[in-house]
Amino acid sequence: MENTVTNAEKYFGQFCSLLAAYTRKTARLRDKADQLVKQLIDFANTENPEMRVTLRNFAEDLAKVQDYRQAQVERLEAKVVNPLKLYGMQIKQTRAEIKKFKHVRNNEIKQLEKLEKLRQKSPSDRQMIAETSVQRASVDASHTTHQLEETVDAFQRQKLKDLQKIFSDFVTIEMVFHTKAVEVYSSAFQALDNYDLERDVEDFRAKMRGVCGHYNAQPLTDTTPSAAVPWSLPAQSDQSIIRSRRREAEASEDHPAEEDPVEDLKGLGRDTINRMRTPQVEK
Amino acid sequence: MENTVTNAEKYFGQFCSLLAAYTRKTARLRDKADQLVKQLIDFANTENPEMRVTLRNFAEDLAKVQDYRQAQVERLEAKVVNPLKLYGMQIKQTRAEIKKFKHVRNNEIKQLEKLEKLRQKSPSDRQMIAETSVQRASVDASHTTHQLEETVDAFQRQKLKDLQKIFSDFVTIEMVFHTKAVEVYSSAFQALDNYDLERDVEDFRAKMRGVCGHYNAQPLTDTTPSAAVPWSLPAQSDQSIIRSRRREAEASEDHPAEEDPVEDLKGLGRDTINRMRTPQVEK
Repeated sequence: MENTVTNAEKYFGQFCSLLAAYTRKTARLRDKADQLVKQLIDFANTENPEMRVTLRNFAEDLAKVQDYRQAQVERLEAKVVNPLKLYGMQIKQTRAEIKKFKHVRNNEIKQLEKLEKLRQKSPSDRQMIAETSVQRASVDASHTTHQLEETVDAFQRQKLKDLQKIFSDFVTIEMVFHTKAVEVYSSAFQALDNYDLERDVEDFRAKMRGVCGHYNAQPLTDTTPSAAVPWSLPAQSDQSIIRSRRREAEASEDHPAEEDPVEDLKGLGRDTINRMRTPQVEK
Repeated sequence: MENTVTNAEKYFGQFCSLLAAYTRKTARLRDKADQLVKQLIDFANTENPEMRVTLRNFAEDLAKVQDYRQAQVERLEAKVVNPLKLYGMQIKQTRAEIKKFKHVRNNEIKQLEKLEKLRQKSPSDRQMIAETSVQRASVDASHTTHQLEETVDAFQRQKLKDLQKIFSDFVTIEMVFHTKAVEVYSSAFQALDNYDLERDVEDFRAKMRGVCGHYNAQPLTDTTPSAAVPWSLPAQSDQSIIRSRRREAEASEDHPAEEDPVEDLKGLGRDTINRMRTPQVEK
């Protein structure tokens, strides 16, 4: 009977620390993915418009999954780890109650045994009184046993109900997260699939020719020492910057103002950084 | 032009280490969940048949998700982290090629400048020869520039293609895992939802009465010191063990032999332990 409380204490304690660790590891996974989002945005800014938009959209989707993962972490804390923590206190309380009842009952049993011996030894004229005492003590012991039973019964019922509730909540939280992740990754896959490699390569070639292709086009008489090394310039020429700006403007025409991927990502970047600054789950 | 290689080196390196860390954290999450599976099975064995079956089924589902997570870890290693690692070598090779071409071209340009000066100074009868030399040198430099362009162009095309491939693979791997997780957790939710609390509580009460309920039923005359303390026994009475065995047999009738949850879990337990012994992703 007491085993149910002892086992609950042992296993609920382990469930609590394992699920707290599981939640922490989930938070670490979110942090790594957040860092990846940041690097993807930085890298996107060094790429041509086609890949830039693709990478930014991918980073945005990856950031969305981390927002859902953050919600998952918060829910696991609130609905799984904390209830298990509270359980520790409840178990201590139940153990104290059981101890109290057992103490009372042991005293009652000793008393009952004493009275039973007295009854057997007592002369026949005192038998009635002795029997009444034994009966009264027996009722007391039975009452305490009943109280003890009720305490354990209530504990067991609550334990089973909580077990079902806590693990159902765990499953629901995981299910919601995984469902959302499937949704977001499906759209991310589409975005990556729509990437136009040929257009990007064309753009890159045009830019490369803008920077280092002069040589072929130059008439021989124009060959002066100062014009002979333009391909070693690390920066883009003004012309190619203007061209890339135009391309960007063209690209942004495909996206109405309210869906500006750059604006969205600025917001997401901030969220990510804020989340990194105030980690909710730390070891 | 060289920026594309420098940036690729910098960012692909970061992507590689971040995604390797992401994979490691995923493996840690799997390990924690594996430990939880083990504890759930241990705890299930201390519970009554109703909760025992529920917990075992839940543990089994949780183990299944970890098997899918293990597959996710292996796929991320093979299709995301390793290709990014190989990239490092490819980038070094491209850099060496670019360096070689630039060295050749610089020499060619110096030569060209020298010949151009010679041409300007040379007397009119030597103009034809000088011009031919300049032209030949110009063709050489142009050829090298073209080779350099082609190297960078091929690198850029491969880089963009690989970027799309690697991140598409990442998204696909994640999508498959999350989809499987949704499937398994949906069934886990049903199993937890089907748990019959009342039946379990009835069972517990019957057992509790078997262990400590004798007192109420005992006639007063039977009250002997040895019989007075059965409720402090930590173990189940034989009677209640027989009863619980019968219950178990009843419960197993609901499951045909090929779906025996105990057998399934033994297998799963082994898998889990084997996986723990040979972790594939270590820091």
